[in-house]
Amino acid sequence: MKTKAHVLFSGGKDSSLSAILLEPFFDVHLVTCNFGILPTGPIAADIAREIGFPHQILKPDVSVLEEAAKTAQKDGFPNQAINDIHRHVLALLAKTDGVSVIADGLRRDDRVPHVPLPEIQSFESKNKVLYCSPLMGFGRATINKMIDSHLVITEEESAGMLKCDYEAELREYLSQDIGEEATHKLFPKSHKQSRVISRIRK
Amino acid sequence: MKTKAHVLFSGGKDSSLSAILLEPFFDVHLVTCNFGILPTGPIAADIAREIGFPHQILKPDVSVLEEAAKTAQKDGFPNQAINDIHRHVLALLAKTDGVSVIADGLRRDDRVPHVPLPEIQSFESKNKVLYCSPLMGFGRATINKMIDSHLVITEEESAGMLKCDYEAELREYLSQDIGEEATHKLFPKSHKQSRVISRIRK
Repeated sequence: MKTKAHVLFSGGKDSSLSAILLEPFFDVHLVTCNFGILPTGPIAADIAREIGFPHQILKPDVSVLEEAAKTAQKDGFPNQAINDIHRHVLALLAKTDGVSVIADGLRRDDRVPHVPLPEIQSFESKNKVLYCSPLMGFGRATINKMIDSHLVITEEESAGMLKCDYEAELREYLSQDIGEEATHKLFPKSHKQSRVISRIRK
Repeated sequence: MKTKAHVLFSGGKDSSLSAILLEPFFDVHLVTCNFGILPTGPIAADIAREIGFPHQILKPDVSVLEEAAKTAQKDGFPNQAINDIHRHVLALLAKTDGVSVIADGLRRDDRVPHVPLPEIQSFESKNKVLYCSPLMGFGRATINKMIDSHLVITEEESAGMLKCDYEAELREYLSQDIGEEATHKLFPKSHKQSRVISRIRK
Protein backbone atom coordinates (compact mmCIF):
# COMPACT_ATOMS: atom_id res chain seq x y z
CA MET A 1 0.00 0.00 0.00
CA LYS A 2 1.30 3.45 -0.89
CA THR A 3 2.06 6.01 1.81
CA LYS A 4 -0.34 8.98 1.90
CA ALA A 5 1.05 12.33 0.76
CA HIS A 6 -0.87 15.53 1.54
CA VAL A 7 -0.32 18.15 -1.16
CA LEU A 8 -1.16 21.81 -0.46
CA PHE A 9 -3.52 22.76 -3.25
CA SER A 10 -4.57 26.17 -4.60
CA GLY A 11 -6.40 24.92 -7.69
CA GLY A 12 -3.55 26.34 -9.79
CA LYS A 13 -1.29 24.59 -12.23
CA ASP A 14 1.76 24.27 -9.98
CA SER A 15 0.03 22.47 -7.12
CA SER A 16 -1.88 20.31 -9.62
CA LEU A 17 1.36 19.32 -11.36
CA SER A 18 2.97 18.54 -7.98
CA ALA A 19 0.13 16.13 -7.26
CA ILE A 20 0.46 14.46 -10.67
CA LEU A 21 4.24 14.10 -10.21
CA LEU A 22 3.76 12.36 -6.87
CA GLU A 23 0.90 10.12 -8.03
CA PRO A 24 3.03 7.12 -9.10
CA PHE A 25 4.72 7.06 -5.69
CA PHE A 26 2.14 8.12 -3.10
CA ASP A 27 -1.56 7.98 -2.29
CA VAL A 28 -2.08 11.70 -3.00
CA HIS A 29 -4.60 13.79 -1.01
CA LEU A 30 -5.09 17.48 -1.77
CA VAL A 31 -5.44 20.03 1.03
CA THR A 32 -6.66 23.59 0.57
CA CYS A 33 -6.14 26.18 3.28
CA ASN A 34 -9.17 28.39 3.98
CA PHE A 35 -9.51 31.15 6.59
CA GLY A 36 -13.27 31.66 6.05
CA ILE A 37 -12.78 34.98 4.25
CA LEU A 38 -13.54 33.75 0.71
CA PRO A 39 -15.34 30.59 -0.50
CA THR A 40 -12.14 29.02 -1.84
CA GLY A 41 -12.78 25.59 -0.31
CA PRO A 42 -15.61 24.44 -2.63
CA ILE A 43 -13.88 25.88 -5.72
CA ALA A 44 -10.70 23.95 -4.94
CA ALA A 45 -12.75 20.83 -4.17
CA ASP A 46 -14.33 21.00 -7.65
CA ILE A 47 -10.93 21.25 -9.34
CA ALA A 48 -9.56 18.41 -7.20
CA ARG A 49 -12.47 16.19 -8.31
CA GLU A 50 -11.84 17.18 -11.92
CA ILE A 51 -8.18 16.07 -11.77
CA GLY A 52 -8.99 12.95 -9.78
CA PHE A 53 -7.71 13.36 -6.23
CA PRO A 54 -9.41 13.27 -2.83
CA HIS A 55 -9.57 16.72 -1.24
CA GLN A 56 -9.92 18.24 2.19
CA ILE A 57 -10.00 21.77 3.61
CA LEU A 58 -7.62 22.93 6.32
CA LYS A 59 -8.90 25.79 8.48
CA PRO A 60 -6.13 27.61 10.35
CA ASP A 61 -7.17 30.18 12.96
CA VAL A 62 -8.01 33.53 11.37
CA SER A 63 -5.48 35.15 13.73
CA VAL A 64 -2.77 33.79 11.40
CA LEU A 65 -4.26 35.89 8.60
CA GLU A 66 -4.68 38.91 10.90
CA GLU A 67 -1.01 38.78 11.86
CA ALA A 68 0.02 38.37 8.23
CA ALA A 69 -2.11 41.38 7.25
CA LYS A 70 -0.29 43.49 9.85
CA THR A 71 3.06 42.29 8.52
CA ALA A 72 2.12 43.13 4.91
CA GLN A 73 1.07 46.65 5.96
CA LYS A 74 4.23 47.19 7.98
CA ASP A 75 6.47 45.90 5.13
CA GLY A 76 4.59 47.63 2.31
CA PHE A 77 4.60 44.36 0.35
CA PRO A 78 3.22 40.86 1.01
CA ASN A 79 6.28 38.57 0.72
CA GLN A 80 6.99 37.99 4.41
CA ALA A 81 3.27 37.82 5.20
CA ILE A 82 2.81 35.01 2.67
CA ASN A 83 5.90 33.24 3.98
CA ASP A 84 4.49 33.43 7.52
CA ILE A 85 1.12 32.00 6.46
CA HIS A 86 2.87 29.15 4.63
CA ARG A 87 4.86 28.21 7.73
CA HIS A 88 1.75 28.22 9.91
CA VAL A 89 -0.10 26.06 7.42
CA LEU A 90 2.79 23.57 7.17
CA ALA A 91 2.97 23.33 10.98
CA LEU A 92 -0.80 22.86 11.31
CA LEU A 93 -0.90 20.20 8.60
CA ALA A 94 2.05 18.39 10.20
CA LYS A 95 0.04 18.12 13.44
CA THR A 96 -3.07 16.77 11.65
CA ASP A 97 -3.95 13.10 12.20
CA GLY A 98 -2.78 10.76 9.46
CA VAL A 99 -0.33 13.21 7.90
CA SER A 100 3.20 11.85 7.36
CA VAL A 101 4.29 13.26 3.98
CA ILE A 102 3.58 16.92 3.09
CA ALA A 103 4.15 18.51 -0.32
CA ASP A 104 3.67 21.97 -1.74
CA GLY A 105 3.87 23.52 -5.20
CA LEU A 106 6.95 25.73 -4.69
CA ARG A 107 9.15 26.14 -7.76
CA ARG A 108 12.88 26.71 -8.32
CA ASP A 109 12.35 30.31 -9.40
CA ASP A 110 9.79 31.24 -6.69
CA ARG A 111 10.78 34.03 -4.38
CA VAL A 112 7.90 33.43 -1.95
CA PRO A 113 7.04 31.33 -0.18
CA HIS A 114 10.59 30.17 0.45
CA VAL A 115 11.66 27.62 3.06
CA PRO A 116 15.45 27.44 3.55
CA LEU A 117 17.06 23.98 3.85
CA PRO A 118 17.99 24.12 7.58
CA GLU A 119 14.40 25.12 8.39
CA ILE A 120 13.07 22.22 6.26
CA GLN A 121 15.31 19.75 8.06
CA SER A 122 14.30 21.04 11.48
CA PHE A 123 10.60 21.04 10.48
CA GLU A 124 10.86 17.41 9.36
CA SER A 125 12.63 16.18 12.46
CA LYS A 126 10.57 18.20 14.97
CA ASN A 127 7.24 17.09 13.48
CA LYS A 128 8.33 13.59 12.41
CA VAL A 129 7.00 14.21 8.90
CA LEU A 130 8.59 14.28 5.46
CA TYR A 131 8.27 17.50 3.47
CA CYS A 132 8.89 17.92 -0.23
CA SER A 133 8.44 20.46 -3.04
CA PRO A 134 8.27 18.30 -6.18
CA LEU A 135 8.75 21.29 -8.54
CA MET A 136 11.80 22.74 -6.73
CA GLY A 137 14.20 21.32 -9.33
CA PHE A 138 12.29 22.74 -12.30
CA GLY A 139 12.23 26.18 -13.94
CA ARG A 140 9.12 27.88 -15.31
CA ALA A 141 9.64 26.85 -18.96
CA THR A 142 10.16 23.17 -18.10
CA ILE A 143 7.10 23.20 -15.84
CA ASN A 144 5.01 24.71 -18.64
CA LYS A 145 6.09 21.90 -20.97
CA MET A 146 5.07 19.32 -18.37
CA ILE A 147 1.72 21.01 -17.79
CA ASP A 148 0.95 21.27 -21.52
CA SER A 149 0.60 17.53 -21.92
CA HIS A 150 -1.29 16.91 -18.67
CA LEU A 151 -3.59 19.81 -17.79
CA VAL A 152 -6.02 22.15 -19.50
CA ILE A 153 -5.52 25.63 -18.05
CA THR A 154 -7.31 28.95 -18.22
CA GLU A 155 -5.36 32.15 -17.66
CA GLU A 156 -7.08 35.40 -16.75
CA GLU A 157 -6.25 38.63 -14.98
CA SER A 158 -6.18 38.01 -11.22
CA ALA A 159 -9.14 40.27 -10.60
CA GLY A 160 -11.41 38.20 -12.84
CA MET A 161 -10.91 34.86 -11.13
CA LEU A 162 -10.83 33.68 -7.55
CA LYS A 163 -7.63 31.80 -6.79
CA CYS A 164 -7.68 29.47 -3.82
CA ASP A 165 -4.35 30.58 -2.38
CA TYR A 166 -3.17 32.57 0.64
CA GLU A 167 -2.86 35.76 -1.38
CA ALA A 168 -6.55 35.80 -2.37
CA GLU A 169 -7.75 35.72 1.23
CA LEU A 170 -5.01 38.08 2.43
CA ARG A 171 -6.03 40.63 -0.22
CA GLU A 172 -9.71 40.28 0.65
CA TYR A 173 -9.04 40.58 4.38
CA LEU A 174 -6.97 43.72 3.82
CA SER A 175 -9.57 45.19 1.44
CA GLN A 176 -12.23 44.87 4.13
CA ASP A 177 -9.85 46.32 6.71
CA ILE A 178 -8.02 49.18 4.97
CA GLY A 179 -9.92 49.54 1.69
CA GLU A 180 -9.30 48.38 -1.85
CA GLU A 181 -7.00 51.16 -2.92
CA ALA A 182 -4.59 50.84 0.02
CA THR A 183 -4.58 47.04 -0.43
CA HIS A 184 -3.88 47.37 -4.13
CA LYS A 185 -0.69 49.31 -3.34
CA LEU A 186 0.69 46.48 -1.18
CA PHE A 187 0.51 43.86 -3.91
CA PRO A 188 2.47 43.58 -7.13
CA LYS A 189 0.68 44.74 -10.25
CA SER A 190 -2.14 42.44 -11.30
CA HIS A 191 -0.67 39.51 -13.21
CA LYS A 192 -2.17 36.61 -15.07
CA GLN A 193 -3.38 33.83 -12.81
CA SER A 194 -3.98 30.30 -13.91
CA ARG A 195 -6.68 27.89 -12.99
CA VAL A 196 -6.91 24.24 -13.92
CA ILE A 197 -9.97 23.28 -16.00
CA SER A 198 -9.34 19.59 -16.50
CA ARG A 199 -6.76 16.86 -16.76
CA ILE A 200 -5.53 15.31 -19.99
CA ARG A 201 -5.45 11.53 -19.54
CA LYS A 202 -3.60 9.34 -21.97
CA MET B 1 4.77 13.71 -29.34
CA LYS B 2 6.70 14.16 -26.11
CA THR B 3 9.83 16.31 -25.96
CA LYS B 4 13.05 14.35 -25.44
CA ALA B 5 14.74 14.72 -22.06
CA HIS B 6 18.35 13.56 -21.61
CA VAL B 7 18.96 12.36 -18.05
CA LEU B 8 22.54 12.01 -16.78
CA PHE B 9 22.73 8.44 -15.57
CA SER B 10 25.17 6.72 -13.21
CA GLY B 11 23.26 3.46 -12.82
CA GLY B 12 22.46 4.47 -9.24
CA LYS B 13 19.10 4.93 -7.62
CA ASP B 14 18.94 8.72 -7.77
CA SER B 15 19.44 9.05 -11.50
CA SER B 16 17.11 6.08 -12.10
CA LEU B 17 14.39 7.68 -9.98
CA SER B 18 14.88 10.99 -11.82
CA ALA B 19 14.22 9.19 -15.09
CA ILE B 20 11.10 7.48 -13.72
CA LEU B 21 9.78 10.83 -12.37
CA LEU B 22 10.16 12.44 -15.81
CA GLU B 23 8.74 9.48 -17.77
CA PRO B 24 5.09 10.66 -17.81
CA PHE B 25 6.15 14.03 -19.22
CA PHE B 26 9.11 13.44 -21.52
CA ASP B 27 10.62 10.93 -23.92
CA VAL B 28 13.44 9.99 -21.53
CA HIS B 29 16.93 9.09 -22.80
CA LEU B 30 19.70 8.15 -20.38
CA VAL B 31 23.24 9.46 -20.86
CA THR B 32 26.31 8.12 -19.06
CA CYS B 33 29.55 10.06 -19.04
CA ASN B 34 32.68 8.00 -19.66
CA PHE B 35 36.30 9.18 -19.90
CA GLY B 36 37.66 5.84 -21.07
CA ILE B 37 39.32 5.09 -17.71
CA LEU B 38 36.87 2.42 -16.53
CA PRO B 39 34.32 0.31 -18.48
CA THR B 40 31.34 2.16 -16.99
CA GLY B 41 29.52 2.61 -20.30
CA PRO B 42 28.39 -1.00 -20.87
CA ILE B 43 27.48 -1.46 -17.19
CA ALA B 44 25.25 1.62 -17.27
CA ALA B 45 23.78 0.48 -20.61
CA ASP B 46 22.75 -2.85 -19.03
CA ILE B 47 21.00 -1.10 -16.14
CA ALA B 48 19.29 1.33 -18.52
CA ARG B 49 17.92 -1.61 -20.52
CA GLU B 50 16.75 -3.25 -17.30
CA ILE B 51 14.72 -0.19 -16.27
CA GLY B 52 13.43 0.39 -19.78
CA PHE B 53 15.08 3.52 -21.19
CA PRO B 54 17.22 4.15 -24.29
CA HIS B 55 20.84 4.86 -23.36
CA GLN B 56 23.86 6.57 -24.84
CA ILE B 57 27.41 7.25 -23.73
CA LEU B 58 28.90 10.74 -23.64
CA LYS B 59 32.69 10.92 -23.98
CA PRO B 60 34.15 14.21 -22.77
CA ASP B 61 37.83 14.85 -23.43
CA VAL B 62 40.05 13.17 -20.85
CA SER B 63 41.66 16.56 -20.20
CA VAL B 64 38.54 17.41 -18.16
CA LEU B 65 39.37 14.51 -15.85
CA GLU B 66 43.07 15.44 -15.75
CA GLU B 67 42.21 18.98 -14.67
CA ALA B 68 39.77 17.69 -12.05
CA ALA B 69 42.43 15.33 -10.71
CA LYS B 70 44.80 18.28 -10.26
CA THR B 71 42.07 20.24 -8.47
CA ALA B 72 41.31 17.33 -6.11
CA GLN B 73 45.01 17.01 -5.23
CA LYS B 74 45.37 20.74 -4.68
CA ASP B 75 42.23 20.91 -2.51
CA GLY B 76 42.87 17.69 -0.59
CA PHE B 77 39.26 16.62 -1.23
CA PRO B 78 37.22 15.98 -4.38
CA ASN B 79 34.21 18.33 -4.07
CA GLN B 80 35.31 21.09 -6.43
CA ALA B 81 36.77 18.55 -8.86
CA ILE B 82 33.42 16.74 -9.10
CA ASN B 83 31.61 20.07 -9.49
CA ASP B 84 33.96 20.99 -12.34
CA ILE B 85 33.39 17.69 -14.14
CA HIS B 86 29.62 18.09 -13.79
CA ARG B 87 29.71 21.54 -15.37
CA HIS B 88 31.82 20.31 -18.29
CA VAL B 89 29.46 17.40 -18.85
CA LEU B 90 26.37 19.65 -18.74
CA ALA B 91 27.96 22.03 -21.26
CA LEU B 92 29.01 19.19 -23.58
CA LEU B 93 25.57 17.57 -23.44
CA ALA B 94 23.90 20.94 -24.11
CA LYS B 95 25.93 21.22 -27.34
CA THR B 96 25.02 17.71 -28.49
CA ASP B 97 22.60 17.39 -31.43
CA GLY B 98 18.97 16.79 -30.49
CA VAL B 99 19.39 17.79 -26.83
CA SER B 100 16.86 20.35 -25.55
CA VAL B 101 15.99 19.22 -22.01
CA ILE B 102 18.75 18.05 -19.64
CA ALA B 103 18.19 16.46 -16.23
CA ASP B 104 20.46 15.16 -13.49
CA GLY B 105 19.95 13.25 -10.25
CA LEU B 106 20.97 15.99 -7.79
CA ARG B 107 19.09 15.95 -4.49
CA ARG B 108 18.03 18.61 -1.98
CA ASP B 109 20.60 17.47 0.58
CA ASP B 110 23.51 16.99 -1.87
CA ARG B 111 26.56 19.07 -1.26
CA VAL B 112 28.22 18.19 -4.57
CA PRO B 113 27.68 18.59 -7.37
CA HIS B 114 25.86 21.85 -6.72
CA VAL B 115 24.72 24.32 -9.39
CA PRO B 116 23.56 27.69 -7.96
CA LEU B 117 20.38 29.24 -9.41
CA PRO B 118 21.99 32.17 -11.30
CA GLU B 119 24.38 29.72 -12.97
CA ILE B 120 21.46 27.46 -13.95
CA GLN B 121 19.58 30.38 -15.48
CA SER B 122 22.62 31.57 -17.43
CA PHE B 123 23.36 27.98 -18.57
CA GLU B 124 19.79 27.59 -19.86
CA SER B 125 19.71 30.88 -21.74
CA LYS B 126 23.25 30.63 -23.14
CA ASN B 127 22.73 27.11 -24.47
CA LYS B 128 19.03 27.42 -25.31
CA VAL B 129 18.26 24.28 -23.31
CA LEU B 130 16.12 23.53 -20.28
CA TYR B 131 17.86 22.04 -17.26
CA CYS B 132 16.19 20.35 -14.32
CA SER B 133 17.02 18.29 -11.24
CA PRO B 134 13.80 16.35 -10.55
CA LEU B 135 14.91 15.29 -7.04
CA MET B 136 15.96 18.77 -5.86
CA GLY B 137 12.74 19.23 -3.86
CA PHE B 138 13.09 15.91 -2.03
CA GLY B 139 15.09 14.81 1.03
CA ARG B 140 16.81 11.45 1.40
CA ALA B 141 14.03 9.75 3.40
CA THR B 142 11.31 10.77 0.92
CA ILE B 143 13.44 9.61 -2.01
CA ASN B 144 13.99 6.24 -0.33
CA LYS B 145 10.24 5.82 0.06
CA MET B 146 9.76 6.58 -3.64
CA ILE B 147 12.52 4.18 -4.66
CA ASP B 148 11.17 1.34 -2.47
CA SER B 149 8.06 0.92 -4.57
CA HIS B 150 9.77 1.32 -7.97
CA LEU B 151 13.29 -0.09 -7.94
CA VAL B 152 15.16 -3.12 -6.64
CA ILE B 153 18.50 -1.94 -5.30
CA THR B 154 21.70 -3.58 -4.12
CA GLU B 155 23.92 -1.76 -1.64
CA GLU B 156 27.55 -2.69 -1.13
CA GLU B 157 30.76 -1.09 0.02
CA SER B 158 32.09 1.21 -2.73
CA ALA B 159 35.18 -0.90 -3.25
CA GLY B 160 33.13 -3.97 -4.15
CA MET B 161 31.12 -2.45 -6.98
CA LEU B 162 31.87 -0.25 -9.93
CA LYS B 163 29.69 2.83 -9.96
CA CYS B 164 29.25 4.59 -13.28
CA ASP B 165 29.77 8.11 -11.93
CA TYR B 166 32.44 10.79 -12.13
CA GLU B 167 33.94 9.77 -8.81
CA ALA B 168 34.70 6.21 -9.94
CA GLU B 169 36.80 7.35 -12.90
CA LEU B 170 38.38 10.22 -10.95
CA ARG B 171 39.49 7.78 -8.24
CA GLU B 172 40.85 5.33 -10.80
CA TYR B 173 42.67 8.05 -12.71
CA LEU B 174 44.26 9.32 -9.49
CA SER B 175 45.15 5.79 -8.35
CA GLN B 176 47.08 5.22 -11.57
CA ASP B 177 48.72 8.65 -11.21
CA ILE B 178 49.59 9.02 -7.53
CA GLY B 179 48.90 5.55 -6.13
CA GLU B 180 46.05 4.00 -4.22
CA GLU B 181 47.01 5.15 -0.77
CA ALA B 182 47.38 8.84 -1.69
CA THR B 183 44.08 8.67 -3.63
CA HIS B 184 42.31 7.06 -0.70
CA LYS B 185 43.23 10.06 1.48
CA LEU B 186 41.54 12.49 -0.90
CA PHE B 187 38.13 10.80 -0.76
CA PRO B 188 35.70 10.49 2.12
CA LYS B 189 35.71 7.17 3.95
CA SER B 190 34.25 4.34 1.90
CA HIS B 191 30.47 4.46 2.13
CA LYS B 192 27.71 2.22 0.87
CA GLN B 193 26.97 2.68 -2.80
CA SER B 194 23.79 1.62 -4.47
CA ARG B 195 23.18 0.05 -7.81
CA VAL B 196 19.87 -0.61 -9.45
CA ILE B 197 19.08 -4.28 -10.16
CA SER B 198 15.64 -3.99 -11.70
CA ARG B 199 12.45 -1.99 -11.89
CA ILE B 200 9.21 -2.86 -10.11
CA ARG B 201 6.35 -2.45 -12.58
CA LYS B 202 2.77 -2.32 -11.39
